[in-house]
Amino acid sequence: MNFNSVRYVQGRIYQICSFLLLVPVLVALFFQEFKAALSSFGLVAVVMLGLGFLMTIKRPETLRLRASEGMVITFLTWLSVSLASALALILTGEISGFVNAFFESASGFSTTGSTILRDVEALSHYCLFWRSFTHFIGGMGVLVFAFVISADSPADTVNIMKAEMPGPYFGKLVSRIRKTAVILYAIYFAMTLITIILLCLGGMSVFDGVIHGLGAAGTGGFSNRNSSIGFYNSSYINWVLTVAMVLFGINFQVYFIGLKKGIRQAIKSEELRWYLGIYLSVSLLVTLTTLRQALSAGQAIEHSFFTVSSIMSTTGYATRDFSLWPLISQVLLLFVMLLGASAGSTGGGLKVSRFMVYLKSAREQIVRSRDQRQIMSVRVDGQLLPESDKQPVLRYLCIYFLFISFGTLLLALDSPDLMTAFSASATAVNNVGPGLSAIGPVANFSGFTDFSKIVLSLLMLAGRLEFLPFLLFFSPKTWKRTS
Amino acid sequence: MNFNSVRYVQGRIYQICSFLLLVPVLVALFFQEFKAALSSFGLVAVVMLGLGFLMTIKRPETLRLRASEGMVITFLTWLSVSLASALALILTGEISGFVNAFFESASGFSTTGSTILRDVEALSHYCLFWRSFTHFIGGMGVLVFAFVISADSPADTVNIMKAEMPGPYFGKLVSRIRKTAVILYAIYFAMTLITIILLCLGGMSVFDGVIHGLGAAGTGGFSNRNSSIGFYNSSYINWVLTVAMVLFGINFQVYFIGLKKGIRQAIKSEELRWYLGIYLSVSLLVTLTTLRQALSAGQAIEHSFFTVSSIMSTTGYATRDFSLWPLISQVLLLFVMLLGASAGSTGGGLKVSRFMVYLKSAREQIVRSRDQRQIMSVRVDGQLLPESDKQPVLRYLCIYFLFISFGTLLLALDSPDLMTAFSASATAVNNVGPGLSAIGPVANFSGFTDFSKIVLSLLMLAGRLEFLPFLLFFSPKTWKRTS
Repeated sequence: MNFNSVRYVQGRIYQICSFLLLVPVLVALFFQEFKAALSSFGLVAVVMLGLGFLMTIKRPETLRLRASEGMVITFLTWLSVSLASALALILTGEISGFVNAFFESASGFSTTGSTILRDVEALSHYCLFWRSFTHFIGGMGVLVFAFVISADSPADTVNIMKAEMPGPYFGKLVSRIRKTAVILYAIYFAMTLITIILLCLGGMSVFDGVIHGLGAAGTGGFSNRNSSIGFYNSSYINWVLTVAMVLFGINFQVYFIGLKKGIRQAIKSEELRWYLGIYLSVSLLVTLTTLRQALSAGQAIEHSFFTVSSIMSTTGYATRDFSLWPLISQVLLLFVMLLGASAGSTGGGLKVSRFMVYLKSAREQIVRSRDQRQIMSVRVDGQLLPESDKQPVLRYLCIYFLFISFGTLLLALDSPDLMTAFSASATAVNNVGPGLSAIGPVANFSGFTDFSKIVLSLLMLAGRLEFLPFLLFFSPKTWKRTS
Repeated sequence: MNFNSVRYVQGRIYQICSFLLLVPVLVALFFQEFKAALSSFGLVAVVMLGLGFLMTIKRPETLRLRASEGMVITFLTWLSVSLASALALILTGEISGFVNAFFESASGFSTTGSTILRDVEALSHYCLFWRSFTHFIGGMGVLVFAFVISADSPADTVNIMKAEMPGPYFGKLVSRIRKTAVILYAIYFAMTLITIILLCLGGMSVFDGVIHGLGAAGTGGFSNRNSSIGFYNSSYINWVLTVAMVLFGINFQVYFIGLKKGIRQAIKSEELRWYLGIYLSVSLLVTLTTLRQALSAGQAIEHSFFTVSSIMSTTGYATRDFSLWPLISQVLLLFVMLLGASAGSTGGGLKVSRFMVYLKSAREQIVRSRDQRQIMSVRVDGQLLPESDKQPVLRYLCIYFLFISFGTLLLALDSPDLMTAFSASATAVNNVGPGLSAIGPVANFSGFTDFSKIVLSLLMLAGRLEFLPFLLFFSPKTWKRTS
């Protein structure tokens, strides 16, 4: 571990985060909540700025970070930003208990959207805004954002970008990384803005529109309404969000290619086709299974497509209590919950591209057992997937299930039933939000003990960063001093 | 597909199976049930013998089987033997409905031990014996047994042995395969006999001793008592079976090496150490969590060690209703249920050696992300595991979870709750026996529809043969004619 570089880069990030903490203070201005916001978020912002200043006084001669250091910095940043946010939330006096505040922050930044609040509507505007803003920051990655706007970033930002970007990356990363990142951010901002405008056109107030637009953009799922999107009871809003959530679950590279080379080139993406194919098939199946319970076929279609979009993109908004749906539709939802969205999107889960590799590997096994001489390999986008890309994807499945299993075990100490423990672990690791049984879409996480809330918070952060930064952070060998 | 060879080998196996079907007729002699047994098992035996005779009239010039043909023959044999057994059970008039009889047979041969019978005690002796005898046959593999005693087996029996043996095989197979198989069978017979004698010394009748000895040997779990081993209420019997089930869950190669090279060499097996280590740790943890509910510490130890042994070896005997135990012990049981026994044992599940590879692969990912130049690979028994052995193990995990997921989906159509659907799928694929929720250790599978029973039967057979024979059997390409 090159402590000097890590300290310096951390300091820079703290400085940038302190400005992000000031955004809710600005929001508070509109709602006569300025004083409260200043003495909570304002205070923490000043502390972060000071800390960042102290840490960056002495600049190391070279700012090179190895891949593992990039990962550790990533986890360290996410952890400390969540802690800073928790501190701010505690200072507002609106959330009681530091563990609750930390849970809410980790859930926000990791774009999970699980809440320990029984009554979100009681919160002040700037707090509600901050919760949803953390989704927006966490969706695209706080570090990449920091490096994009900072003039003084390490030479190999690419290692950090890799650590923070969800999903496996097949092929070479673009060389001019910062330029690419700026374009990706522009797309992200534009899409979010359009979503907000469309929501407001449907009758949402500007504030509600911003909250749910940010939540959809980060595929987070925090709402300012206790009954989530069900509150608005509007088909228009449901469909706008359905489409928005599906779009934010798509790899942003697809949009990038679409802008540069045209839509024809963009829709060639194999992952995109699988993602949309799975989304449409599962939505249709869920529609079929819920048809009997629904008032009309239109209702069944609307709520099924909404719910599958919400769960598969790992957002977690709800219009209906799907824990009352037939069992088979719940299994389908559990399937897309584990599957998740596309790599390079703001969504969580295993990622469609990994699932593609798993299915193709299974097929490879069948073909090879029929004829061992057959040299066959897994292809993605028509290209042969090299072993160096395939192996980590296969190993990822082992780590993924180890985390979910271990989480289930720890949460079982404190759950009313097995499905609660398992779905809590799965929803946290996959950054979805709602689970099944005692933590269904109309319930919340307030019933858990502090121990379970900490476990869930760590699972959310570990899942968002895809485990390796978390594992490296807690591995003693990582902390050996190097120059 | 070389249809001539497949036909001929199938015919040979049918002939041998017809003799196995006569064993319950012999048993019936002792219990004045001869007439009923002759008109059911005797009849089917004659049909099988005739069929086998017709299929072997014309011997192909060469009896070479490719690996894929070996696998297809394996699945075909298990399927047809299960169907023949179902036919015999139907003819006895003691099980109603062909699907029920097929379920019971598939559950027997696959050494699962799930039953659709509400009252096993009502069955005649020869039927009860046959159910447990199928465990014994299925445990070590019906095909390997057939080739061991047949003078006319194909040149490359090794391919079939590989298809039928549970678990991955690391290293080279012994060249003199038949000689090895004979020794393995001798060990199997001897261990079974010792178990039966020990059970009878504990006060079981000879018949009950045979039933439970065969059930433990095959890690099956059929009992002739409705309350399983709980019926005897004897610490001695519980401990005998605990040790027996653990021993039958060990790779038989370990005993083979122990006989040839001494015990010192045998206990060097890494899988053995992991298996025993996991068994002891989980048993101790379960003891701790059930301590409060138990009458005494001794009781807690006895029933915890028994239950973990039963579930981890995938036998499925029960002394206590563990679905009433604390949630955390249920999660631990679910964990060892998925994990299963050792490769090359009679047990099911993922197998400890695969789990070893998964954990080591996860570790490899961490080490490699810390330093990409580090060339590291997975070692088993101190030997570097070549990619050609490691890759199939990693791919196996994908296939394994696809089967459990797909099973859960189909069973959800017909289950009272999600845990029933999931644990039914998992218990079938892993050949355990009992599940959780509606199919706990004191319940049975009679509540499912015929559709679900067929799904479960296929899952049991597919799981016992580790999926590839099943997948190849249902893949159209396999059935192309070759010479």
